Amino acid sequence: MKRSHRLVALTNFFLENPREHRQLPYFAEIYGSSKSSLSEDLDIIDNVFQQEGLGYLARTSGAAGGVRYIPEFSMEKSVPYINDLCRKLEDPARILPGGYLYMSDILGDPRETREIGRVFASRFSNLDIDVVVTVATKGIPLAYAVASFLGVPVVIVRRDPKVTEGSSVSINYVSGSSRKIQTMVLPKRSLPEGSNVCIIDDFMKAGGTVTGMVSLLEEFQANVRAIGVLAEADDEEDERMVEEYTSLVKISNVDIKQNYIEVHPGNFTEER
Amino acid sequence: MKRSHRLVALTNFFLENPREHRQLPYFAEIYGSSKSSLSEDLDIIDNVFQQEGLGYLARTSGAAGGVRYIPEFSMEKSVPYINDLCRKLEDPARILPGGYLYMSDILGDPRETREIGRVFASRFSNLDIDVVVTVATKGIPLAYAVASFLGVPVVIVRRDPKVTEGSSVSINYVSGSSRKIQTMVLPKRSLPEGSNVCIIDDFMKAGGTVTGMVSLLEEFQANVRAIGVLAEADDEEDERMVEEYTSLVKISNVDIKQNYIEVHPGNFTEER
Repeated sequence: MKRSHRLVALTNFFLENPREHRQLPYFAEIYGSSKSSLSEDLDIIDNVFQQEGLGYLARTSGAAGGVRYIPEFSMEKSVPYINDLCRKLEDPARILPGGYLYMSDILGDPRETREIGRVFASRFSNLDIDVVVTVATKGIPLAYAVASFLGVPVVIVRRDPKVTEGSSVSINYVSGSSRKIQTMVLPKRSLPEGSNVCIIDDFMKAGGTVTGMVSLLEEFQANVRAIGVLAEADDEEDERMVEEYTSLVKISNVDIKQNYIEVHPGNFTEER
Repeated sequence: MKRSHRLVALTNFFLENPREHRQLPYFAEIYGSSKSSLSEDLDIIDNVFQQEGLGYLARTSGAAGGVRYIPEFSMEKSVPYINDLCRKLEDPARILPGGYLYMSDILGDPRETREIGRVFASRFSNLDIDVVVTVATKGIPLAYAVASFLGVPVVIVRRDPKVTEGSSVSINYVSGSSRKIQTMVLPKRSLPEGSNVCIIDDFMKAGGTVTGMVSLLEEFQANVRAIGVLAEADDEEDERMVEEYTSLVKISNVDIKQNYIEVHPGNFTEER
């Protein structure tokens, strides 16, 4: 295969298989090319990926040496994206009764959810995550987007057990904002004990749902390495149950009378 | 930018933005290259995409001329994938009480859902779909995967109205297998009237859920152009409420006593 063609095929492979390790002979065989010219291809791809802020190719030398694509959205790309998201969310037409914000259009756009997932996955890239956990329903597309960049599976916590998932572990918890007692279930066979987990959700008020997930995950001896929420409600901060989390945007001042919303970047953009 | 670098950047652009139309000057400006050399780049990329069975670049000439990437998984790639899926599903360890099959591991793997989405999107590629509709919860990752390849948004039908989605239209329907009366809701503002819709779900028994979605969608004057289900239950075929649909696999003979399952390719692979 000619270099020009190889570059296209390789670029597709890396984008389709983030974090998947391959030895050079694997590619050498597929494309019928020498290791040395392949190695030059990888330099070119790595170079462009870094220029475009898409991440980089991690090379390992030696007998078992090879390459894997680590998707990492640069801050230079994440911050403008988050600011752009704030502008979109400040549209007063989004205000719903109870001071909620209509976000289903953004959560319903695969390109948006993919970008959001890319931003979170970049931040959690070095946490050695084994699985992304979310709770039905709104967080699901975000969880899949994050997982696809981390190259790990998704596990979905449900509010109700489902016959098609077999025996499951369930807990009751108190929702932070509504103070209601709610249930959460996770199928027994869905999560190996001791997994490194990243929790993803779309919205956090007082954080009752996330706290519920954390205690449910304790039943699986899981290590919660990261918590990512797309939007957090600013006003609840003082009574928040969750300490460490990453939010992309912070919704403050949903003024129904004045028909006005204020949305700021979340703690993602703060100094770490 | 050198051709080699341009090829990597362009390949990334097309894979990230399926079906998005761009005029050559757009790329010419970004990469600071002549239309003629860009045009050669596109030939190379188109060539590799077709060789790899990933789809093709649709070029339009003239003043408003440009290019868009149409992702189309070739049958040569779809059929082996479906057969492979059948083998995975035939694992007796998947049998659950009631003769259900545990599929959450497959539905929880972003790479699997992406491939399934690719297969459906290829089949529905020419139907001019505006939006993919699914019902919470299991179909969601498949719906997003299909939508990402079709370059359209996803709308999620819920079993229960949610305060964060504003006013919604709801209908009652009779679930085909359990004969229970159930409810489905769709937020009013989630779907423009007269949209061309593709319904995606993970599993179909008698088809009550899909029928329910169809009648709910009638309230939005939507045109259901396609229905895709990952797995259909064979035994229900005679009493099935849905006429036209595309299934990837057909589950027959879930024999709990003998601990044996038979899974065959669905009607996707049949002559069209």
